Amino acid sequence: MKPVCLVIGAGAGIGGNVARRFAQEGFHAVLCRRRDQDGLDELVGIIEADGGTASGRLLDAVAEGSIEDCVDAVENDSGPIEVAVYNLGAQIGNHALGDTSLKAFEMGWRLGTLGLFRLAQAVCPRMVERGHGTLLVTSATAAMRGNPGQHSHAAAMGGRRLLCQTLNAEFGPLGIHVAHIVVDGAVDAPDTLGKMLGPEGYRRLREARGQEHDGLLLPDKIADTFWHLAQQHRSVWTHELDLRPFCDSPWWNG
Amino acid sequence: MKPVCLVIGAGAGIGGNVARRFAQEGFHAVLCRRRDQDGLDELVGIIEADGGTASGRLLDAVAEGSIEDCVDAVENDSGPIEVAVYNLGAQIGNHALGDTSLKAFEMGWRLGTLGLFRLAQAVCPRMVERGHGTLLVTSATAAMRGNPGQHSHAAAMGGRRLLCQTLNAEFGPLGIHVAHIVVDGAVDAPDTLGKMLGPEGYRRLREARGQEHDGLLLPDKIADTFWHLAQQHRSVWTHELDLRPFCDSPWWNG
Amino acid sequence: MKPVCLVIGAGAGIGGNVARRFAQEGFHAVLCRRRDQDGLDELVGIIEADGGTASGRLLDAVAEGSIEDCVDAVENDSGPIEVAVYNLGAQIGNHALGDTSLKAFEMGWRLGTLGLFRLAQAVCPRMVERGHGTLLVTSATAAMRGNPGQHSHAAAMGGRRLLCQTLNAEFGPLGIHVAHIVVDGAVDAPDTLGKMLGPEGYRRLREARGQEHDGLLLPDKIADTFWHLAQQHRSVWTHELDLRPFCDSPWWNG
Amino acid sequence: MKPVCLVIGAGAGIGGNVARRFAQEGFHAVLCRRRDQDGLDELVGIIEADGGTASGRLLDAVAEGSIEDCVDAVENDSGPIEVAVYNLGAQIGNHALGDTSLKAFEMGWRLGTLGLFRLAQAVCPRMVERGHGTLLVTSATAAMRGNPGQHSHAAAMGGRRLLCQTLNAEFGPLGIHVAHIVVDGAVDAPDTLGKMLGPEGYRRLREARGQEHDGLLLPDKIADTFWHLAQQHRSVWTHELDLRPFCDSPWWNG
Repeated sequence: MKPVCLVIGAGAGIGGNVARRFAQEGFHAVLCRRRDQDGLDELVGIIEADGGTASGRLLDAVAEGSIEDCVDAVENDSGPIEVAVYNLGAQIGNHALGDTSLKAFEMGWRLGTLGLFRLAQAVCPRMVERGHGTLLVTSATAAMRGNPGQHSHAAAMGGRRLLCQTLNAEFGPLGIHVAHIVVDGAVDAPDTLGKMLGPEGYRRLREARGQEHDGLLLPDKIADTFWHLAQQHRSVWTHELDLRPFCDSPWWNG
Repeated sequence: MKPVCLVIGAGAGIGGNVARRFAQEGFHAVLCRRRDQDGLDELVGIIEADGGTASGRLLDAVAEGSIEDCVDAVENDSGPIEVAVYNLGAQIGNHALGDTSLKAFEMGWRLGTLGLFRLAQAVCPRMVERGHGTLLVTSATAAMRGNPGQHSHAAAMGGRRLLCQTLNAEFGPLGIHVAHIVVDGAVDAPDTLGKMLGPEGYRRLREARGQEHDGLLLPDKIADTFWHLAQQHRSVWTHELDLRPFCDSPWWNG
Repeated sequence: MKPVCLVIGAGAGIGGNVARRFAQEGFHAVLCRRRDQDGLDELVGIIEADGGTASGRLLDAVAEGSIEDCVDAVENDSGPIEVAVYNLGAQIGNHALGDTSLKAFEMGWRLGTLGLFRLAQAVCPRMVERGHGTLLVTSATAAMRGNPGQHSHAAAMGGRRLLCQTLNAEFGPLGIHVAHIVVDGAVDAPDTLGKMLGPEGYRRLREARGQEHDGLLLPDKIADTFWHLAQQHRSVWTHELDLRPFCDSPWWNG
Repeated sequence: MKPVCLVIGAGAGIGGNVARRFAQEGFHAVLCRRRDQDGLDELVGIIEADGGTASGRLLDAVAEGSIEDCVDAVENDSGPIEVAVYNLGAQIGNHALGDTSLKAFEMGWRLGTLGLFRLAQAVCPRMVERGHGTLLVTSATAAMRGNPGQHSHAAAMGGRRLLCQTLNAEFGPLGIHVAHIVVDGAVDAPDTLGKMLGPEGYRRLREARGQEHDGLLLPDKIADTFWHLAQQHRSVWTHELDLRPFCDSPWWNG
């Protein structure tokens, strides 16, 4: 039976590409996203056309019990989850404090912090029993510094980062590799960046910075590093790293 | 009319001592805590015996609208809030992931992160209108690193820290001083440390480290630094500092 | 006999103002700078006109044995050094790697890092013997992040910051307070900023940002925080804090 | 002609293993170390027995012009340096401030900070001309925090880290990938750890933590991550990551 790579948050950007990469390397990929069954089927189809295997699940990560049930079902249906990828974002653009609703702030926390806590509670005990496993957590600039207008996002991601540290402190010595991956720039992803900018804005940005310019993070290249992290020998685990295009300023340079 | 210092989280530790210090310097102190009307009355009495003025309010910071109503009432009853102190903790001791309930994790966020967001939403617009104000945020080691067993606390405080940064980014240029104060050690406070350890444990710790040994942070000495921060000229504001006893290892030294 | 405050790097900016503030509070201030006996005499005169006492010494901090001899002489002539302030800068402006000479890089280290090491070696054993003392270290944005063109400065200040941490780790428990003060912006100081910009540029910047705008750090206001740090009770020492004008972006916001 | 990987600091630990790994992937490896021609020949022999090509050079990195001449010679003799690895350590064990000589402190800087500056000055202009290149910098816990007794090492490594940031800021946009690799634990390396502990201590530590326990960083596994970094697409470069055994506490957890 193939080892399973579960991706929570699998659109056409980082999540889908990570799933595809793990499938190419012999994993069964399970892709979860909130909606768009067609998009999900398409991603599964791409993986299968590659010669891999995959399954898709619609998952409302905010609903009570949803992540927990999903982990149960995947373990039953597809086998032991060797790698879990938490790839849900919580970016809602920049909003002044007065324009950030309590609801938006809470949703940021539910997607940005609580969902990871719930995934860890569901999957880590199984990995501990097996003595190994990997939890890869996509993160963002907002986990490292609080920028203007990022009240909800930064609070959520600052919590995500420190939660990764407490998970690492508890589960590293038990054989589970927890990595916090700081994606410090704009990802060339139609389902997130594309939707935020709209089709015309996205097209213009890609012309200016993307494609041959390599000024947007290419999600299939991000997947190379996710794969590498999952392959690191347990004597040399990385807990945190950053990723950005060569031409971008890192978060600390502004 | 005296300027007002509002303290959310005013027990016999940092909160009560900060209130007392500001009252000694000519502020009217408003002390808020969840329960123990007697304890609250006692703190108000101490301040009045000092020659200061103060009022006390029982406040359930988790209840809907509570912080917002409190800010309204204080501004109406006592006058403009010049300094707001967010001093609610979210430490629940160390618990393995499996022993950290969803409810505890959510409560950590409500007290650790959301409450500060709500206080800022209520008080910052008023301060902006007046062109000045100070928001002092007590924080903890858990805002800087995720220690084993601190899943709830570190996630909450990591969020608190980055929220302070986004608040500073938006409100600093508008004349509001936001400071994040990392209390990196055990505070000699009967209402928090004392309750966590129990009377006998607290007595033993104070004998070993506290009192003449200065191995616990003395809350009235912490208040000196809170006062200093509120006095800094706007050309030289501190956003973040740490506080610990001379004999303690800082968080980065373990 | 008055306690002594020794300031290494005492021009008309932070150093001179810190000296003056400590003299106002009852210290004998010893001001050291590399050259300009007239400027030095003027600073001493200002302090004396204030009702304080001070002495001035020309000191080439790079010369072999100079700092060590200075500490000896001050202890003999003026009495025990209670507070030592290391205020030598190493900023040389932005230069591409190819335009940064080995000599400039080495000079950065000698002023930025080595001089502090030498001061600590000279003064800490005396403070340990007495059971108390304070070492205040002025630092800069470049201690926190490496900006373009700051090869020499950032390497020097990055070293300074971590050296402050090792000094704190060894000497804090022995009663010596070591503080690393991140001056994260431009200081309104004629001897440093003024010389870097030239008289006309300095005048224009002060008109645009300084004086009533409070957009430059005012050195006499910085001195308030230096004084506060030296007054902190040993149960609540700050090791690191930042200072910047209310309208400036912090280093992490770029 | 094969691309060249130049390793400054190539013993039987990280340096030798990184050289070997790059040679396996089709690079010509150039190994430099201060002394022990026999050890150097042995490493070259191992690489050649593997089917790779390599050359060895004795190099006193502290001597004037040595690194610069070495880069010249390698470019002339072996071809364009595609990847340069700066792997010189500056750890001298823990020493109190009073037991850290000026000479030791300066040597720490020469090996820890200045040597990297010199390598960058020699190799970056060539890489800029070619439009690509990679500079991999081995670093240590001491780059992140100053531990007791680490005065020389922490000052040197703190400088190294920020220098990596300024190099990245200048050269990233010109196509050169600079990575700062925090090796946050003890490496199973006979030439460094082995010499520090002596044969008996090293044997005991390896029995307790190393080999099948994976409690020491295995240098050939470290080399996997160095290789990965050099392979990252320029749209997704990592500037900083950490490496440690699964069972070790990260630097921030003490």
